[in-house]
Parts: sequence; structure tokens; C-alpha cells
Amino acid sequence: MLTNPRADRVRSVAALSRRSARDRAGLFLAEGPQAVREAVRWRPESIRDLYVTRHTEIVTEAGAAGVHVHECSPEVLAAMSGTDAPQGLLTVCRLLTASWPAVLAARPRLLLVLAHIRDPGNAGTVIRGADAAGADAVIVSEASVDVFGPKVVRSTAGSLFHLPVVTGLPMSQILADLRAAGLATLAADGAGARLLPEVDLSGPHAWIMGNEAWGLSEEVRSACDEVVRVPIFGHAESLNLAMAATVCLYASALSPR
Amino acid sequence: MLTNPRADRVRSVAALSRRSARDRAGLFLAEGPQAVREAVRWRPESIRDLYVTRHTEIVTEAGAAGVHVHECSPEVLAAMSGTDAPQGLLTVCRLLTASWPAVLAARPRLLLVLAHIRDPGNAGTVIRGADAAGADAVIVSEASVDVFGPKVVRSTAGSLFHLPVVTGLPMSQILADLRAAGLATLAADGAGARLLPEVDLSGPHAWIMGNEAWGLSEEVRSACDEVVRVPIFGHAESLNLAMAATVCLYASALSPR
Repeated sequence: MLTNPRADRVRSVAALSRRSARDRAGLFLAEGPQAVREAVRWRPESIRDLYVTRHTEIVTEAGAAGVHVHECSPEVLAAMSGTDAPQGLLTVCRLLTASWPAVLAARPRLLLVLAHIRDPGNAGTVIRGADAAGADAVIVSEASVDVFGPKVVRSTAGSLFHLPVVTGLPMSQILADLRAAGLATLAADGAGARLLPEVDLSGPHAWIMGNEAWGLSEEVRSACDEVVRVPIFGHAESLNLAMAATVCLYASALSPR
Repeated sequence: MLTNPRADRVRSVAALSRRSARDRAGLFLAEGPQAVREAVRWRPESIRDLYVTRHTEIVTEAGAAGVHVHECSPEVLAAMSGTDAPQGLLTVCRLLTASWPAVLAARPRLLLVLAHIRDPGNAGTVIRGADAAGADAVIVSEASVDVFGPKVVRSTAGSLFHLPVVTGLPMSQILADLRAAGLATLAADGAGARLLPEVDLSGPHAWIMGNEAWGLSEEVRSACDEVVRVPIFGHAESLNLAMAATVCLYASALSPR
């Protein structure tokens, strides 16, 4: 039973709220019942430690999956947590970095590429939406938010453990590799020439979404096969990133293959 | 030129960040270039006062539309603001309460009903999505978040000024009136029996979305014509409210009429 919130181990776990510490240690935090449950069920091998304030069903499941479970006081859990309310459960996981060549080799039919996205809540929500729409993987370009930050992890609602997330590649390489793998590249952009309902979504393709404030660069847009616009029927200027991504991904998921 | 951040007028504007003051005064705040621009262009008659720190194009436009413009110091604007960054522009508007009978009399084809929704960011995002999808109005039931709160107003990105928003009615009345007006009522619910792509969206209909945490009550679900589920193709447990609403509204907008 860990009871000292100032212990070295507690400090080193708490440090994982910072990107530099995550990168150095190759570890991240996932907190709360939903994230912990999905981690235990889908990627138990990624869990280095599970800290709990009391025994619950998921703790039994974790033990059965070979996870190291540590009991600790609520003060210790709060000191470790990157959020205000870890709700009694916190895991330290190894970074879930998916292999880009492996993602491509699995003959994906639907991918989501996030180019230079910065807002943690958006990134997490969009990864959750990609999971719901059955995307085969999410690719987050270099110079984007760290998908293993506490706020992204929380916003994914467990989806981070469900599908491969590839990080750190430059957009030029992502687009070139997608083309070589035979996937159509569809840039989603409010200034696109083609309207979403006009686009053929029957073949393997990747949606490319830009930064929440400035969208996609001209360079990325011109390197894509199509620049596609979600139609706006009312008077809104645009949809936000998460809504636009979800509409595009569901258009793909619901279209006949 | 207003320069005293402790003036009575400044205090009474600042008070509008609180629901009780808004309800008493029948006024609300809209801040920042986007909200102010949409207010000036779409509902100038609703603007009681526009406070600005400098003269910009939208200030000229507001003046031409008969809006009372007041110059003030950045300190005054900050003191009035319900947010951290009013960005030089703030309006005090009369509450934009739309008439429910008028909405129904206009023979709407697509409506969004939010039942007991509580999160301001969700409410705003969903109103923006409804605007983008061309919904004719949004109805926010009683016991919901106040749509004229600063966070909702900001999240709507101006859409609050684009389409009628009806508030304060009980769900039982909303559903009865929709039926009497000939609109199909489609409850969106993860436990729904019908899948979204199977539902006929060609006639006039209203989407009914529940609270972000506990969804729709059994009472509301059973009073609707259909309980519809957005299909989940991957392993995500669900979509969040804003994503589910956007997928449903766009399915309606894109379906042949």
C-alpha cells in the first residue's frame, strides 16, 4: 500500500503529465474507469503499472491479464494524476506507437490523417470518432499535439487503445506513402472544389484534416487527390474540426464498398 | 469614451455572465469578432449596445445598421467580459427567444431538440452543427443549460444569430406539438433498435438528442416515433453528443427529400 504522496515513485509518475518526461520514459498516464478498462481489455501488455485506491472488478481482470496492480491511498493517486479526478484508477502505460509500415501492410480501407493539429480535446474527440466510424488507423503528423497527453487520452474515451495511432511523420512522407499503398488522399477543406456527397468513397482512402485554426497548407492540399468540402446548408461559416472529421468518416463508413 | 472599469454601467454589463442577471434584464453578452459580426449582420435589432476598443470595419457596419456603439478602454472591456479575451468587441443583446408556434407555423423540415442538455460547450457546438446542416430551428428543453451563457454563445461561433432557438418548454409539450405539426420524432440513442442508414429521412422530422451523461429518459424514448442508433463500426463505446448529433443532422441534410 503506497501512502506517501511525496515518494520518488509518485513524483516520477506525476511527471508523465509533461511531454518531455513521457518522451524520456516512453510512458504515459491513462486515468479513470473507462480508459483503464479499455487498456486492460485491449492492450494489457502496454500497462506497466496499475494504481488503485480500492479493489473493483476491473482490478481482478487486470490481475488475471498479468498487470502489476498497486494499492495506494487517494492522496497518492491524486498526486500522481494529471487530472483533477482520477476516480480511483490510474495506469502507467508504454507509449502505444504503431508502426506505419505495419499499418500500410494491413491493407487499410479507411484512414484518418491529422495534419499539425494542436488542440488536445479535438485530437482525442477525433480519434474517438475515427474508432466509431471503423477507421483502420489514425496518423498524427509531426508538429502536432502529443496524443499521449492527459487531455487527449481522456478525450479519446478509451479509443486510443482500440486502433493504431501513428505519430511523428512529416506530411510529405505520409502522403507519398499513402499514394504508393494505393489509397486515395482526400483533403477536407471548407474551400474544396468537390462536395462530399459527390466523392466516390468506395475504394481505400484516407481523410486528411488540417489544423483547427488555419486548416491545411496549400502544399498539402495540392498533394492530395481531391480537396473535398462538407456542404454547409445553413448560415454557419464552417464546422469545427471534430464535426467535419466525423461527417467525412461516417460518409465513408456508410457508403457502399 | 468609457474608461472607468468600476462604473455602474460596467458592473451591470459584467453581471450578464450570470444567468440570474440575464433572466432579470432580458439581455446577454456576445463577445469577439465572429459573434459580433454575425449579430450585426443577422440580428442588428437585437443589439442594445456595442462596446469597442477601436474602430474596425464591423463597427462601421454596426453604426450603419443603427447599433449604439460605445468606445471604451481595454480595461473596461475586460471588466465587462464574461471570457478572458473579448478581442476588442462586446455586444449586449436582447435575449433571442424564438416563438415556438412561429417555428411550427413555418412548416419546418428539419429540427433539432436537445433534451436536458447541460454542458455549455456541447450545446453551442450542436447549435453550430444544426446551423451547418440547415436545420430550421433548435429547441432546447426546460432544465437545460442556458443557451445565452458566455460559453454557449462562444461555442456557437455565431450560429445563435442564424437560426431560431426555442427554450424553456417541457419535453412532453415539445413532442406533442411536433406530432401535431406532422413531424416525425426520431430519438437518437445508442440503444436504438433502428440503424441510422435504415431510417427514412425524406419527410419533415425532428432529431431528439439526450443529455450527455444519461441520454434520453425511457419516457421520451417511448414517446418518439423511432429510436435510432448511429452505427458503431469500430470498438468505441459511443459517439459524444456533438458528434452523434452532427452525423444524424447531416444524414438528414444529405438524404433525398
